[in-house]
Amino acid sequence: MLEVSPSDQYLRASADTPLLDLYAAVPAGLYLPFPPLELPGGLGGLVSRGGFAQTFFFGSEVLGLTFIAPSGRRVVAGGRTVKNVQGYDLTRPFVGSFGRLGQAETITLRLRPGLISAHHARPGTLADAQDSRARFVWQHGDTLHAFHFGHVREVETVMQAFGGEPVTAALDYRPLFPGGMGVGEGGPLRDRRFGWADGGQVPEVPALFARVAASL
Amino acid sequence: MLEVSPSDQYLRASADTPLLDLYAAVPAGLYLPFPPLELPGGLGGLVSRGGFAQTFFFGSEVLGLTFIAPSGRRVVAGGRTVKNVQGYDLTRPFVGSFGRLGQAETITLRLRPGLISAHHARPGTLADAQDSRARFVWQHGDTLHAFHFGHVREVETVMQAFGGEPVTAALDYRPLFPGGMGVGEGGPLRDRRFGWADGGQVPEVPALFARVAASL
Repeated sequence: MLEVSPSDQYLRASADTPLLDLYAAVPAGLYLPFPPLELPGGLGGLVSRGGFAQTFFFGSEVLGLTFIAPSGRRVVAGGRTVKNVQGYDLTRPFVGSFGRLGQAETITLRLRPGLISAHHARPGTLADAQDSRARFVWQHGDTLHAFHFGHVREVETVMQAFGGEPVTAALDYRPLFPGGMGVGEGGPLRDRRFGWADGGQVPEVPALFARVAASL
Repeated sequence: MLEVSPSDQYLRASADTPLLDLYAAVPAGLYLPFPPLELPGGLGGLVSRGGFAQTFFFGSEVLGLTFIAPSGRRVVAGGRTVKNVQGYDLTRPFVGSFGRLGQAETITLRLRPGLISAHHARPGTLADAQDSRARFVWQHGDTLHAFHFGHVREVETVMQAFGGEPVTAALDYRPLFPGGMGVGEGGPLRDRRFGWADGGQVPEVPALFARVAASL
């Protein structure tokens, strides 16, 4: 399942959809809340881990989802449009819950408008890009990446400040994580939230969050 | 308790702090995620109801909070800065939970930069302002209000499109809600999410959200 509404600026897709399939499905002038690259677990994996490389609040870009809770119960959370966010929110706790609240079935993402996009890479580490205004910044080995979309002049300004060279190849980071994409030091990828390492390790689960998970 | 960090762009305050006291405490050039007016219940009431008049995702502006859950347990959720949003999120479900997850003690809000702000009012209803790019739009009786902050030219553009006359008086809407500020039709205020009526009525609580509340 993959449904795009350009007028209401959302995309709804099965959790197992690869990220680059979503990029292929979105019409020109609209953008997704992740950079154009492939990660383990597709859309469901991305949302379960709380996004990748974003420099903004990722939770607000997930408008709604259905998931199977640990009890086996099917949960329908959130709506399809921004104005449907009316409280009693079970969407946001699912985002970044690393599977503890269950497995997503379908996910609705907000799309945002942009005239152009750019992806640059250069040698460096995240510490060198603290002030970057790019929407996405991440480090792969010793290479720093930035992806941005928006108005023409704004994208040019952000990329000029970042430096580096344009990247045109489609990146597939799945082979970096044969045992699953988890958090941890010493792994091949890093963003502002975590180091990402092979093996699927998750951040420590607070006891109270475990109680919430058990209640669903 | 009221603590402001201009460098990290956050404000932390007791839940019972009046909204206009927060406006008075914030230094020039930084803005709060609500318009400069007073509502029942101060900061805690605002967050419990999921904000007022915003045209953006209010949940992302609440960086963290402490609250007393229905069980009497004290819950510490979220952090103080944007990058601390790392998953296992109990902040966002509290926002807009209309008291069902408990009562807030202290709340940390994100502050956003702006060079100037403007507040205009004109006759009209929310249906007339669907396309407004103002950060806050609300209707009081037959009068439509817009509040915006940002760069000088942007604020001017948004307010020119909205029309109306500048409002300089501090608005206190508390007397409109002697029985509490609840949702419902026929009340004196309206924003894009709800009609707001006297009496403290809350939207229907989904069964699953009640289970989450009982687990905390």
